[in-house]
Amino acid sequence: MEIYLDHAATGVMRPESVAAYCSAAACGNPSSLHSKGIEAKRLLESSRRSVASAFGCLPEEIIFTSGGSEGNNTAIFGLARLRTKRAKRIILSEGEHPSVENPVKELVSQGFEAKYIPTSGGRLDLDSLREALSVPTALVCVMLANNETGALYDIAGVRRAIDSSGSGAFFHCDAVQGFLKTPDSAKLKRYCDTASVSAHKVGGPKGVGALFVKSGVKIPPLIYGGGQERGLRSGTEDLPGAAAFAAACEAHTARENEYIASLREYTVKLLSDPQDGIVIRTPERFVPSILSISVPGVRSEVMLNALSAEGICVSAGSACSAARKGSSRVLEAYGMPKEESDSALRLSFGVTNTEEECAAAAQAIVSAARRLRR
Amino acid sequence: MEIYLDHAATGVMRPESVAAYCSAAACGNPSSLHSKGIEAKRLLESSRRSVASAFGCLPEEIIFTSGGSEGNNTAIFGLARLRTKRAKRIILSEGEHPSVENPVKELVSQGFEAKYIPTSGGRLDLDSLREALSVPTALVCVMLANNETGALYDIAGVRRAIDSSGSGAFFHCDAVQGFLKTPDSAKLKRYCDTASVSAHKVGGPKGVGALFVKSGVKIPPLIYGGGQERGLRSGTEDLPGAAAFAAACEAHTARENEYIASLREYTVKLLSDPQDGIVIRTPERFVPSILSISVPGVRSEVMLNALSAEGICVSAGSACSAARKGSSRVLEAYGMPKEESDSALRLSFGVTNTEEECAAAAQAIVSAARRLRR
Repeated sequence: MEIYLDHAATGVMRPESVAAYCSAAACGNPSSLHSKGIEAKRLLESSRRSVASAFGCLPEEIIFTSGGSEGNNTAIFGLARLRTKRAKRIILSEGEHPSVENPVKELVSQGFEAKYIPTSGGRLDLDSLREALSVPTALVCVMLANNETGALYDIAGVRRAIDSSGSGAFFHCDAVQGFLKTPDSAKLKRYCDTASVSAHKVGGPKGVGALFVKSGVKIPPLIYGGGQERGLRSGTEDLPGAAAFAAACEAHTARENEYIASLREYTVKLLSDPQDGIVIRTPERFVPSILSISVPGVRSEVMLNALSAEGICVSAGSACSAARKGSSRVLEAYGMPKEESDSALRLSFGVTNTEEECAAAAQAIVSAARRLRR
Repeated sequence: MEIYLDHAATGVMRPESVAAYCSAAACGNPSSLHSKGIEAKRLLESSRRSVASAFGCLPEEIIFTSGGSEGNNTAIFGLARLRTKRAKRIILSEGEHPSVENPVKELVSQGFEAKYIPTSGGRLDLDSLREALSVPTALVCVMLANNETGALYDIAGVRRAIDSSGSGAFFHCDAVQGFLKTPDSAKLKRYCDTASVSAHKVGGPKGVGALFVKSGVKIPPLIYGGGQERGLRSGTEDLPGAAAFAAACEAHTARENEYIASLREYTVKLLSDPQDGIVIRTPERFVPSILSISVPGVRSEVMLNALSAEGICVSAGSACSAARKGSSRVLEAYGMPKEESDSALRLSFGVTNTEEECAAAAQAIVSAARRLRR
């Protein structure tokens, strides 16, 4: 028996998505001029329309990428270059993913300056943001939903702060964890200049993503070559991947989000017995697919291994920072005491999960806590 | 009926590759620490071993990428940065793909200097290369097999020229069109510092590739983030893609190359009647999957459309330069007269093609030539 509660690391590819992939596997190269190429181009553009429709944006505002990390790197390096003569400051939240923080660090090594905004309690500190924007700023990077705590950051507030600062800073949003999973996802097109998403977090294939680039924003590419994706992303288009991503977007429903929210709520209830001493983290606003808890007295990796031995897959922090030693920078920024960040667990839900699985996982966590605390 | 003779633009995904993709579609995130992550990591590493074995290199010399363009960009920007203080010259052949030429142009805008080496008759001019190397040189880019003419360039000669120059220049090879298709493919590990390949050109999936990085060569990444692929390529690993690429490499046989060579030879014979006035291009050394011809008197796009109307898919130049107006820079560098480059066609063969298809295509080309020349 396997209970997979690590959908924030990677989801299960939806059957609709696998079918779309396979049916496009024999397709041609969308840049070829013959009939097979034209047919491929048509499928690529209809896939783009589906993803754009999930964003609520124009198809020409969607660039297919190889995933969230490429999208974040493309946007951050590209937007910073557009402003390099005017401003050297890059503002980012303390909750950002390594694929945002590390490009910014690289830019710092090239002469930019990074300014971090606190995210204590899962709340983006807008006062700090406004203060940070008083210096000429190239770019603000704030994610939609934090991948470790599930906290939703106030992207409308970020936009207002930028606009009232008059700094002309760009706003890039790493929307990988929130896309399609929260109503805020529909606001990306309104508030952000660029936003990156990843197919495999929404039931699509790995190695595929999209970058929203608002009309009128002209960034240079990260990958140069044949000029595909309007020059912004060269390389033969991954048409089966794009079609599979589109199918996942089309298959997604608001009802699924409600179902996932009910699974989270149910699990919270089962873990809330004060006798068990489990800390449940409830940010002011959160994406329901992620539940962050702590089991003080049992280090994360010990609990993770104990659960894994029972076939239960959860994570400590994020998969992308799994190799990092010590407790998570993001959890520290959340403001939790060390014994909570050292014992943090992330449960993340998908549509394929059931209440029975959640109950079994909660039971296993409670039992392991008793056993391992001894 | 469709006759697909454009395998150099994109191949047909092999059944073994589709099966491997689907069987890995439900896999976990190789960076996760639980059982499902460990299983995913194991499959990723066995896929890496298969691709390394196709290269004849060590598994740790293989970095999975999203394809040939990303590989070329990663290698070129990375290697240039390693030498930026010592040398400003970048040498490249006149036959390079846009995903090599355009990153080099970008580097030129940053202060590097590009020096082109002639490829007249499909032969890399080694005397010019040696002369070019007399100036401190950061990087030499020479492809394995040209994507428009099929010409094989002398990578052993490139290595000797670099070594005897004492310039310490790096050698990057875009091996996308030659990988697995010529015995020279096995020499990449010996002569190159980096070499990029693409899965969809060898029966694997689109959106997947590999970059060979010789042990001891430490390039900075193009995409920063969670530090996957030994820090060289961040982003959740596309495990189904890697497994499907591995399956394509494993399924490939030398016998298939012989079969493809026989299809090319057969087609050449059918197009060689002097009365038809078709120019057959035979570089000194070539990859048998590509046949470059010209039909003087019939512009490429006119012939291409006529054939497409009969369900026959060939290309003029490459798919990546299909949108370019006018005749191909690469064909001009080959040294053909304008009437030949304006009427060039590329036929490229795959294992799924048959002699009957080649005969029908050759017949259609000959008939169309007669009809359209009137």
